[in-house]
Amino acid sequence: MIVSVCLNAALDVTYHVAQLRPGDSVRVDELRERAGGKGINVARAVHQQGVSGAVCGFAGGATGAAIRADLAACGVQSRLTPIRGDSRRTITVVSPQEATVLLEPGPQIDAQEWAALCEQFRDLLAGAAVAVCAGSLPLGAPGDAYAQLCRMAHTAGVAVLVDASGPALLHAVAAGADVARVNAAEAAETLVRPVDSVTSARAAARCLVESGARAAVVSRGRFPAVAVTPAGDFAVHPPAVPAGNPTGAGDAFAATLAVGLARGSAWPAMLADSAAVACAAVAEPDAGRYDPARASALCHAVRVTELQRCR
Amino acid sequence: MIVSVCLNAALDVTYHVAQLRPGDSVRVDELRERAGGKGINVARAVHQQGVSGAVCGFAGGATGAAIRADLAACGVQSRLTPIRGDSRRTITVVSPQEATVLLEPGPQIDAQEWAALCEQFRDLLAGAAVAVCAGSLPLGAPGDAYAQLCRMAHTAGVAVLVDASGPALLHAVAAGADVARVNAAEAAETLVRPVDSVTSARAAARCLVESGARAAVVSRGRFPAVAVTPAGDFAVHPPAVPAGNPTGAGDAFAATLAVGLARGSAWPAMLADSAAVACAAVAEPDAGRYDPARASALCHAVRVTELQRCR
Repeated sequence: MIVSVCLNAALDVTYHVAQLRPGDSVRVDELRERAGGKGINVARAVHQQGVSGAVCGFAGGATGAAIRADLAACGVQSRLTPIRGDSRRTITVVSPQEATVLLEPGPQIDAQEWAALCEQFRDLLAGAAVAVCAGSLPLGAPGDAYAQLCRMAHTAGVAVLVDASGPALLHAVAAGADVARVNAAEAAETLVRPVDSVTSARAAARCLVESGARAAVVSRGRFPAVAVTPAGDFAVHPPAVPAGNPTGAGDAFAATLAVGLARGSAWPAMLADSAAVACAAVAEPDAGRYDPARASALCHAVRVTELQRCR
Repeated sequence: MIVSVCLNAALDVTYHVAQLRPGDSVRVDELRERAGGKGINVARAVHQQGVSGAVCGFAGGATGAAIRADLAACGVQSRLTPIRGDSRRTITVVSPQEATVLLEPGPQIDAQEWAALCEQFRDLLAGAAVAVCAGSLPLGAPGDAYAQLCRMAHTAGVAVLVDASGPALLHAVAAGADVARVNAAEAAETLVRPVDSVTSARAAARCLVESGARAAVVSRGRFPAVAVTPAGDFAVHPPAVPAGNPTGAGDAFAATLAVGLARGSAWPAMLADSAAVACAAVAEPDAGRYDPARASALCHAVRVTELQRCR
């Protein structure tokens, strides 16, 4: 079983409109709502692979209720901790011209709510093989939230994949996260160094490993991802990435890595699977969803090469 | 007691942002949510006058739950009929430059839900003096919805004020609504004639009375409203209207008229009060809310003149 942690769950609302012109009154032609946030996208992608999973996190107010309802509707097991604040929404206004995103401020978490989440996480660890901590931290959560969860998981013998950035990631890495996954932009921001080539991505991944992670993966969109792992350092050359929605592709990558870790797969195979699923996810309009047949087909087009040892 | 009917209830969400640029990702700095829709705004304004009231209408899904919760929080008694569809939201994105409004499509009502609402309305009529039907009809509601409610109210000996436009208004007028209230633009659209002067507004109001209404009021923003009533025809000269949010001012006007009808006030006094409250409501950022002290002060500045009889 794979436990996903989504501390910043959201209700992702998509409005389709003919045109968005500031100052106008615009009729929404079509409306979609679904539970979102990185941890939830990971849980959805795990579920899509037919692997048992559960997601924990925070949910409050009417928006929290809508998040729970959507997860239930799509069969993702959720154990969301109730909070006094209201869960946030993201509104994406899609017109034929462009997509505009409105990001609500998230709720503020208090110490009691954080303690309740830890309790829930501990319960879920009992049946888990891997835990995935993905996304940013809500206001009020401890800065080392992922490090705390990491230590709890390790005490329970559960491996942890952290998909985050900034101090939240660095704390988790220092706590010995089993895999740190970041995209190049996040890695650059977190480590304050350029990450724009295989060489610099490898250096960034190595830095994360030297700081305490067992493995680190730096993804770079349509350019090769780089992984520094106990089995060696690898470049992962994705197939030609289709046009589509790249949001959630990283979450699909993380979910597939977690499934591979749970199965004890070899690193090169895990990385190829993950890149293929991420690529298939780009082709889908819904974040974190993908067509398994397309992913299987793409898997053969991913090339994983071992990078020469350097000193 | 005043019963308001809000068939198209909404959750009015206001986002304050630094700037709305299509194609951008925009952080929402401040977020407000309140129950809205014309009938709910009327109920809120009735409540603010210390008059007992209740609002009926439809509410479904998480947004419906948020509408109920907001009404409860501000002390407005609601008897909303549960529906299978989701209640709609309106999102107003306010930046220092302008306000942009996104209008979600509303839910579709079925025959069973409409029958349940009628049942609820009939129950509320038992203790009511006046019923106010305000706003547009949801998809699936009968085109003569307000006429049906009007007949039910009259059977129960309750007067009806209808604040609507188009066929919904015309049906209610034909059913003998006690007061038809429209703004000039709605009157022009409904009656397919220009309404841009006291004379043409009076002709429009007279047309509604000749079609079956006992009285008709055509409001014209900062220009004089015109009322055709059993006590004579009147022009209602508002005081200088302050800068502010005109949304909901018409609802405040309707609520005050309803309170006057319930009290058996004389038409000129009712009209003066209503214009003063509408004007005070413009000064408030929240639709349908107003400062009673400001309304009292403004009341003396409203001039109601009887129009000469014409043939």
